[in-house]
Order: sequence, then structure tokens, then C-alpha cells
Amino acid sequence: MENFVYQNPTKIIFGRKTQNQVGAETALYGKKVLLHYGGSSIKKSGLYDEVVKSLKENNIEIYELGGVVPNPRLSMVREGIKLCLDNDIDFILAVGGGSVIDSAKAISGGVKYDGDVWDFFAKGVVCQDGLPYGTILTLPATGTEMNFRCVITKDDTLEKRGASFLNPSFSILNAELCATLPKHQVANGVVDMLAHLMERYFTNTTNIDVTDRQIEALMKTIVELGPEVYQDPTNYDVYAQIMWAGTVAHNYSLCVGRETDWATHQIEHELSGMYDVAHGAGLAVLFPAWMKYVYKHDVRRFAQFATRVFNVENDFFNQEKTAYQGILALEKFYKSLDMPLTLRDLDIPESSIDELASNTTRNDKITQGNFVKLQTKDIKEILLLAR
Amino acid sequence: MENFVYQNPTKIIFGRKTQNQVGAETALYGKKVLLHYGGSSIKKSGLYDEVVKSLKENNIEIYELGGVVPNPRLSMVREGIKLCLDNDIDFILAVGGGSVIDSAKAISGGVKYDGDVWDFFAKGVVCQDGLPYGTILTLPATGTEMNFRCVITKDDTLEKRGASFLNPSFSILNAELCATLPKHQVANGVVDMLAHLMERYFTNTTNIDVTDRQIEALMKTIVELGPEVYQDPTNYDVYAQIMWAGTVAHNYSLCVGRETDWATHQIEHELSGMYDVAHGAGLAVLFPAWMKYVYKHDVRRFAQFATRVFNVENDFFNQEKTAYQGILALEKFYKSLDMPLTLRDLDIPESSIDELASNTTRNDKITQGNFVKLQTKDIKEILLLAR
Repeated sequence: MENFVYQNPTKIIFGRKTQNQVGAETALYGKKVLLHYGGSSIKKSGLYDEVVKSLKENNIEIYELGGVVPNPRLSMVREGIKLCLDNDIDFILAVGGGSVIDSAKAISGGVKYDGDVWDFFAKGVVCQDGLPYGTILTLPATGTEMNFRCVITKDDTLEKRGASFLNPSFSILNAELCATLPKHQVANGVVDMLAHLMERYFTNTTNIDVTDRQIEALMKTIVELGPEVYQDPTNYDVYAQIMWAGTVAHNYSLCVGRETDWATHQIEHELSGMYDVAHGAGLAVLFPAWMKYVYKHDVRRFAQFATRVFNVENDFFNQEKTAYQGILALEKFYKSLDMPLTLRDLDIPESSIDELASNTTRNDKITQGNFVKLQTKDIKEILLLAR
Repeated sequence: MENFVYQNPTKIIFGRKTQNQVGAETALYGKKVLLHYGGSSIKKSGLYDEVVKSLKENNIEIYELGGVVPNPRLSMVREGIKLCLDNDIDFILAVGGGSVIDSAKAISGGVKYDGDVWDFFAKGVVCQDGLPYGTILTLPATGTEMNFRCVITKDDTLEKRGASFLNPSFSILNAELCATLPKHQVANGVVDMLAHLMERYFTNTTNIDVTDRQIEALMKTIVELGPEVYQDPTNYDVYAQIMWAGTVAHNYSLCVGRETDWATHQIEHELSGMYDVAHGAGLAVLFPAWMKYVYKHDVRRFAQFATRVFNVENDFFNQEKTAYQGILALEKFYKSLDMPLTLRDLDIPESSIDELASNTTRNDKITQGNFVKLQTKDIKEILLLAR
């Protein structure tokens, strides 16, 4: 177990009807609020009206910025920053999924920064301060509602980059709000959560049974309840558990003292940057391929994953087989969510593999991953396994 | 899963040599510090010198208050409050185990309260503010280093009462500092951690598989590594994991959305109030007795505990037997830590059972526990099972 520092100040307000607390909670931070959201779904569902009512009851002045798209754009972040500065806005309220929250996160940092907000992403400038912001989560998946990470896409080059900002001051999580989600979005979210756990699980750090078991606990929950929630997102009792698992999966409490990987996420970022692919779908195609390429690096860890998460019976005389059965079980899990399993399923041509691989390593300027450090040639092999 | 609110702002600084960061961390909050500790062990170990050096390097003025005893006393809390007020102290640094930290916690609340600090404990006054404080933990057990709870004993009546205050601003956790602990203290700590998890595990709330599994993950870690750390507290790789498990066990992240019990802790408080019994030892005697009294209330939950935590094979045709085997496995675990298993082992006479039982319910004015609500007669039965 390595040394670590952990702190997570986000206040979680979880459960049925909790969106009605948003006005009172927001009033603790400000009087002029940027209400940030995506498309029309929150208006159709009635959530928009509930939020506006709760804010107005608490005498909060509302400035609106809707229209955040999946893979949120830098141009809208800049628009949000200008709106906040021009109107002395003192709080941002993000109502939506990971894209809306990430956009709000970047606006928060940009408002308190003298330079250009893209500096955080492109130049690695460290965010020192931010406008406080809160969230109402409508799509459990990215975990951004309880962490400091944020991914934004630059409009002209389609570069997709990450940066760190303040945590949300509060996040309101009510699985009732997810009941009307399209099924494929529910499934994408489930895949994303599990991926956040696997990126933490596959590590070279030793003496970490405590966090291994904590990660396994959530992986088991997701593997067991994920298909149920996919079949019926209106089942609150199940979706509430999945929602909480998704938040904890990526709130950085489970990777304390251990090296994490993230190679698969990096390859997927290139994929969904170049092609119009849902993040979850990209991960479902790439994760088994990554595993098949790297599992012999530590067969014991993959065998532990297979037995503890997927109840594969350990073959003591052939642990490599046990390990491989775990990968097959993961593919079967993805199938139960009707996920694509190959690049072909995603309509990505084999001819793009070379470019994808070299983009992921910036032409071999960097490696990706920690469990196994991957060069361009390795990523190419992984993509070939994903054909 | 019930609605919940969760927030835990404590910054954890974890790992080898981290005590040397205490001066820099403290300087973020104040210039005049109350250094609060227990007996002479931190002087013998050299920790005291390291802390003083780090504080002085950061130009921090030190006021000392040592001598906190196990089951920390109200008189010393009052002394600490006076010291802080008389000297305009702006931060408290607790260096020690749960008693020292709880004493600092109560001082923190008392400094910012106009009335008498005992009001928080006896009258249920809600703490609104507190002096910021930090901790260096030297005995992993109570979990107080990352929560808001505090237990103080009134000197004259020996009443032991709990109250809630601010969380620590930071806690420094280095298992190297635990290497010289007496073995029985190591074991008491392990028993206490496991108890904090069991108090959360046995519940009537439904649809909570996600938190069940999270709690089980830590219980398994403690059951597996507890005896190892008892045999050799100098094994950093093991003790670091136990230390972290003990913190998470009681940082309130694992009981979100579920009712918890705490009857056994309440009975133990009476026991260790009346007799000079270590908290861990008292819990080891009482928990199996409580379980034997209540397990038929939900055999499925106890069978799940037995199979998932203690690897008892489920008897599908006699789940009650499976459940009971789990209780026996817990007793075996306590034995591996050389814990007492009966009131007799603790030199507590059978004649005290009536008084203990009625004290625990304030003469049947209140019940204890939630899994099964216990009256005086029930607690008497439990104590008889613990003879």
C-alpha cells in the first residue's frame, strides 16, 4: 500500500424527491445562479420546472445556459464563463448527466482564472480556485458528481482532454429521475461505472487486499444489478443501488494507496474523439481486448478477478485458464447489456487502427497505462484483438 | 435503500513518515496550537519530539495538555476549553488514540459554545461550530479520526455519553507509529473496528446489497488480517490495511441509506462505565451473546454474514444452522485474538446483570437497538447468554 492523501468534501443528498431541496441548498452559496443543462429531456420530464420552482422559492435569480452536448465543448464552457463574469453569477447548478456536470466544472474553474480555460487542459495549469457549483445527476455513469475530474472537447480539433477542478459543493442523486432514460444510455452508464472500477483494480501495487475487496464489492453489485436495471430502469430499489455504486466507483475512495491504469479509457477517448461512439460502447469493445493482451502480466490478479467478481471456479492446476474465463465472463456481461463487442459492431474500419494507436501515444511520445505500459505497437495489437 | 445525506470533509494523510507533515498542515489553520495527548508513550517513542519539531519549523506556538486517560474525562475537556479561551488558541492537535481525539473533539465544540460543554452530551444540544482540529492517530480502533462522533465520561457519576461535533480538518495515519503498541491494545482495536461494521450490517432495511457488500469487504479484510497484525504489529504492510479498514469502518460512508443497530455498543458502554473493562474486550463478550439472542429475527441476514464473511458453507436445508455457524466462527475469531469470551473472563459478577440491564435502558425509559428493539428483559437475557 502506497502513501496517499484523500479528501472529498462533496455533500451527497440522496434519495426520492431530493431535487426539491435544490433551492434551499443552493441558497447556502449564492443568490445568482447559472442553470446549466443539456437538451430538452429535463423539460419533458418536468424536472426543469421543479428545479426552477425550488430556486425561485428561495429567491434565487436564474441565468440559463442549456444545450450542452455529449462530449461537452470548449465553446460552451467559454460561453458559460462569460455569462458568469458579465452577470456576477455566484453559483453554477448543473442539471443533467456527466457532460453537463463536466461543462459546469470547467466553467467553475475558468471564472476564477485570468488566462484561457483551455490552459488547464492543454498546458496542465493547476486550478487554484473555482466558483462553487452543485449538481442534480440524471444519468448515473461518469462519477463526476463526486470528484474533481472533467473532460472537455475542443470544437475545432476534436481533441478530448481532462483536467482537475474543485469538487461539487453538493450533488443531488435521485434514481427516480433516471426512470425515463433510454435503455442504451442506462447500459452505457453501467459499463462506464464498471470500467472505473477495473481501471483501479488492475495494478502492480502489493498489499492492497483491503481496497481489492472494496472494489470487488462494487463490481459484484454492478455485475449483479446492472442487467436488472437495464431491463427495467423504473425499478427504484435497484437503480438507487447502481447509482450509488457509480458514484463511489469514481469518487477516488477506492484507489487510495494503489497505482491505477487508465490505458483503456485513453484509447477509448481517441475512439470517441474520431468517431461518434458512446463512451460506454467504446469501453465494452476495448476492455476485453486490453485484458486479453495484458492478463499474462499477472495471472493471479486476473484469476482473483474471475473468481471473486464472476464466481468462476478457480482451476488450481491452470490458473491462466481461470483468468481467461473471467475475461469471457466480462464479455458475457456486456452481451447481457446488448453492448457492441467489436470495432466492426461500432462501424470502425480496420484501416483506422494505425492512426488510433499512434494518436493514443502522441506518436510514441508517451506510453499509456500502468499495469502494463503500452506503446503504439501494443495499442495496435489491442485494437486488432478488438476487430 | 433509504434517503440519506452524506458529507465527510476530513483530509486523510496516510502512510510512512507522514507525521512530519503535521507542522505544514497545521499552519494552514492556525498559529497557536493546543497539543493534546495522553500518557508518556508518545514521548518514549520519539513521536512527541517529531511533532514538536515539525510545528516549530512552521513557527507554531505550542500549548500543551497531556494526560488524557482511556474513557476520556469531562474535567480535562473543561480544562482544555479554558486553556484555548485564555490563550486565544486557534487549532487543536490531538496526538494519540481514540480517547485523545474524542477529548480534542469535545474541546473543539466547547470553545465555540457559550454554555457548558456537557450540554452537548446530556441535553442533546446540537453543536453549530467548533475550533478546527487535526489528529495524528496512534491506535487504530475507534474510527473517530474521520468522523464527527465523540464519547466522554463525566468524572463524578461515570456516565459515558456520546455527542456530535465537527469532523477533524485532517488526520495523519501512519501504521509505523503503531508498531510498538501492546498486543492486547492491537487486538482491542481490531475487535472495535469489526464491531463498527457489524452494528451497520445487521439491519432491517431492504435493497441494500451494495452497502452489504461494501461492509462485508472490510469485515473480510479484518477477519483475515486481524490475527496477523495481532501476532506482529511491526508488519507495516498488514497494519496499514487494518488501519485504513478501521477508518472507513466508522467514517459513515458504509451505512448510508440503511438503519444501523448499536445496541451492543450501548450495553458495552454501561459495562465499561461500571467496570474497568477495555471497550474491545467488552464487545468481544457481548457481540456473540447479542447475536445468539437476535439471529432468528432474520436468519437469512445471519446466514449471509456466515457465508460471505466467514466462508461457512450454506446449508440450504437448514439455514438457521448456517447462521449459527457464523456466530461460532466469530467467537473463534475473537479467540485467535486472545479475547475474553464471557463476563466471567472479565471478572464481572452475575449479580450485576440486573443493574447493567436496567441502566442500559434507563429503567425501561428507552429501548436499545434497531435490528431488534431491546427492553431491559431482553438485555438481561443477552447478559445471561454472556455469563
